[in-house]
Amino acid sequence: MSERTMEKIPREESLRLLAGTAMGRVVFTLHALPAVRPVNHIVDDGDIVIRTHMGAAITTAVSGHDTVVAYEADAIDLDDHLGWSVVVIGPARVVHDEQEITRYRRLLRPWVAGSMDHVIRIRPELVTGFRLVAAGRAEEPADA
Amino acid sequence: MSERTMEKIPREESLRLLAGTAMGRVVFTLHALPAVRPVNHIVDDGDIVIRTHMGAAITTAVSGHDTVVAYEADAIDLDDHLGWSVVVIGPARVVHDEQEITRYRRLLRPWVAGSMDHVIRIRPELVTGFRLVAAGRAEEPADA
Repeated sequence: MSERTMEKIPREESLRLLAGTAMGRVVFTLHALPAVRPVNHIVDDGDIVIRTHMGAAITTAVSGHDTVVAYEADAIDLDDHLGWSVVVIGPARVVHDEQEITRYRRLLRPWVAGSMDHVIRIRPELVTGFRLVAAGRAEEPADA
Repeated sequence: MSERTMEKIPREESLRLLAGTAMGRVVFTLHALPAVRPVNHIVDDGDIVIRTHMGAAITTAVSGHDTVVAYEADAIDLDDHLGWSVVVIGPARVVHDEQEITRYRRLLRPWVAGSMDHVIRIRPELVTGFRLVAAGRAEEPADA
């Protein structure tokens, strides 16, 4: 297999990729330890919105003000090692507004039945994305 | 789609699932912010071994003693919402032994050509795994 190089993805394209995929991993701190959970998401008005499905772990962690979390999504092919990854870092807050909650409950179905259900909104202050491309592709002529 | 429930996966089976997949996400703290990077890995003698491919971010974070990181891998089908996720938490250390490094360089090929290359070993002290299964499956008879 030929080698891969990394290309940065601009912020707007990174957010589009995130909006175009249904799943990612929310990263936070729980009891002073790093924690990570796979969840499904939507992108709404530029924010990442998730519903917790694994108990109150995440909501407990972000119930303070401006708790900063990371959110990562990727699509990397394990055979050809081509793909992309996007990481967003920003403050997360639990949504309390009943109308908002009702709307997100329609838009975002959690994977797991009957689990604790909080809606969390992450504001993407820092957005970094990269693409794994075949080494040398950047040097090829545009019509190759 | 029928609803899903979560089943815990025991430690040994979780580590087997991790060993059977090539990719995961390492979660650490960088400049007091949560950080997450997709990487490929191997499981060696019960430890998770990765090679950094995104600069020195992770190795800087774990160059202290007993820096605790998380490592997550999953295989969740976006269509039928069945699959599993495993999260390992434990101390990470940069491998300095030249023989070990040479061995891991043979076993573990990074995705990206020519990038900074450190080998990091994570000891899985805390292992949690869950499986998303069709709701009610647990109640079905074994010969169903």
